[in-house]
Amino acid sequence: MAYLSVDGRRWASGEKPGRAAEPGEFKFSAVGLDHGHIYSMVNGLKEAGAELKYVWDPDPDKVAAFLRRNPEAKAARCEEEVLEDGETRLIAAAAVPSERCALGLRAMDCGKDYFTDKAPFTSLGQLEAARIKTAATGRKYMVYYSERLHTESSVLAERMIAAGEIGRVVSVSGFGPHRIGPPESRPAWFWDREKYGGILCDIGSHQAEQYLFFAGEEDAEVTAARVGNYGHPEYPELNDFGDCALTGKRGTAGYFRVDWFTPGGLRTWGDGRTLILGTEGYIEMRKFIDVAAERPGHDHVFLVNGAGEQYVNASGLTGCPFFGRLIRDCLERTETAMTQAHAFKAAELSLLAQKKAEEGRTVSWT
Amino acid sequence: MAYLSVDGRRWASGEKPGRAAEPGEFKFSAVGLDHGHIYSMVNGLKEAGAELKYVWDPDPDKVAAFLRRNPEAKAARCEEEVLEDGETRLIAAAAVPSERCALGLRAMDCGKDYFTDKAPFTSLGQLEAARIKTAATGRKYMVYYSERLHTESSVLAERMIAAGEIGRVVSVSGFGPHRIGPPESRPAWFWDREKYGGILCDIGSHQAEQYLFFAGEEDAEVTAARVGNYGHPEYPELNDFGDCALTGKRGTAGYFRVDWFTPGGLRTWGDGRTLILGTEGYIEMRKFIDVAAERPGHDHVFLVNGAGEQYVNASGLTGCPFFGRLIRDCLERTETAMTQAHAFKAAELSLLAQKKAEEGRTVSWT
Repeated sequence: MAYLSVDGRRWASGEKPGRAAEPGEFKFSAVGLDHGHIYSMVNGLKEAGAELKYVWDPDPDKVAAFLRRNPEAKAARCEEEVLEDGETRLIAAAAVPSERCALGLRAMDCGKDYFTDKAPFTSLGQLEAARIKTAATGRKYMVYYSERLHTESSVLAERMIAAGEIGRVVSVSGFGPHRIGPPESRPAWFWDREKYGGILCDIGSHQAEQYLFFAGEEDAEVTAARVGNYGHPEYPELNDFGDCALTGKRGTAGYFRVDWFTPGGLRTWGDGRTLILGTEGYIEMRKFIDVAAERPGHDHVFLVNGAGEQYVNASGLTGCPFFGRLIRDCLERTETAMTQAHAFKAAELSLLAQKKAEEGRTVSWT
Repeated sequence: MAYLSVDGRRWASGEKPGRAAEPGEFKFSAVGLDHGHIYSMVNGLKEAGAELKYVWDPDPDKVAAFLRRNPEAKAARCEEEVLEDGETRLIAAAAVPSERCALGLRAMDCGKDYFTDKAPFTSLGQLEAARIKTAATGRKYMVYYSERLHTESSVLAERMIAAGEIGRVVSVSGFGPHRIGPPESRPAWFWDREKYGGILCDIGSHQAEQYLFFAGEEDAEVTAARVGNYGHPEYPELNDFGDCALTGKRGTAGYFRVDWFTPGGLRTWGDGRTLILGTEGYIEMRKFIDVAAERPGHDHVFLVNGAGEQYVNASGLTGCPFFGRLIRDCLERTETAMTQAHAFKAAELSLLAQKKAEEGRTVSWT
């Protein structure tokens, strides 16, 4: 039996999601430009029909750079001007991780929905405060778990699973290697445990989210977790390695590993993989690169089941429906893009994993 | 930067190991044909210069099939005839897993070295008995951890690590999916926990061995372990899923997952992978297939480091030096192929993992 390179139209029409809002229907503003993810968040929203109004950051250089790429935005004079703006419905933000919750609470207090870069919290206390505030205000605290929400391979995998291609999901394994790059390119908070939250909290939150989503789990237990610093003794608060096993309430078994060891010779920042094992087949996503292969670009999906081995390049095939759904959810007070409970549970598991690792299993050379 | 498909001669000359014994220098016999691995074990030894003398199994059909593929062998009348044969130096065996130790003890008592299929034990008591016997007799209890010892990708990866290509090894992650095939093709012992030992003990032993070897660890702790039966309720003693996290004495972090869910459409029995993460790069082995790719065959090695992404097909590049070394070790009482301590430690970790999983974390649908 040979393998098939297929175009994926069995699972995806090839039509990307259209605009989710009419002109003037949905305006948002950007506050907090500490992480470059803000650009992708803003792009995703704009492509789905949202209109960008204000931008605010205390650093005028960051604002100037942002305006070059988003010239329609207006630089606000202060945070209050944005939060109190009557037209702005949603605050998109990528502040320093430890500040993300406080900003979200202020936004919700001003009646805004909040859309923050991951990780959304650096402590369980922040999560609790946000849970209380969302309940009290009815506002949303949504999270940009980009490794699933903003990759077409993930959207395609979701559809393959829904179509029954791999039977019932047994296990999800995720690998989230990242390139650290020149240390001087990183802001001070990157190296500060209190500010970035630890590796399982930070880049691990993508993985916890994907486990819950692809396994169809609402809740899970942290079965084991480790963090370590193997290669960066000059930055003792950096975790350059972490891994975690999760056991879902429905019984599935998750595992993920994250690290900051992407070598300089890789053609992109990280060889992220997700392996989804089902009773009738499995899916592998090579999200950002097909390492040492001629296949160009990203979003490589491999499906193996009773019908054979199939390769699908998901680039351009599905678009990312999260953004349009988020806009409609904000307008209609629904939860089609991502439930609040799910966004918080992924964060909770990554915080609990970080805590468990720091209390019990910090790894390093002996 | 593009990737390079290279021929691997930087790490391997392309010369395969030659014969390790002169004609008549090293004779062995085969006892216990319950697992098909016996054929690969015998082939490996014969290719390295060993001469097959006797074969014995209580099932005459198994003996007849064996003789068709190894016509030079002589069918023994009973086990004793083999164990007491003065010319036979080594007993190669693939008995039912729970019987492997008892056979090994008998062989060592008769002054023979023993080379068994994995898993070498199904209980910690058996392991202890074998430790005592090897110490008392000075004989060897070697194990056919084929997923490393008999794959050229593993030999090449070993050489890449030794050449410093990925810096210091931080973590080893292994995936050992297997095809279960038609249930009627499996012997009764396959489904019986007492006889096969559990999935972490059985196919997990390959993985524990590879972790220790590639991480350069002599010992490790079982940090977490799970086993489950997700898809085979009609065989309640089968574990069709297992995973395990290991933390090495030197500080490295290991993880492996094994399962019996290889779908019918895969072109081979399992998409086994080993991911070796180092401080300066990483290696991925796709040992048995490059899923949904044109690259034919097996032993696909991917090396990524500061120099770029490199693909090497290790097939035919290195051979498998284990067998010749084992022959010389038996003749010269050395430990160049694999130390006794290593062979036992890999087994011990897989037994401890199985125990930990059964005591604490049996997973299934809830």
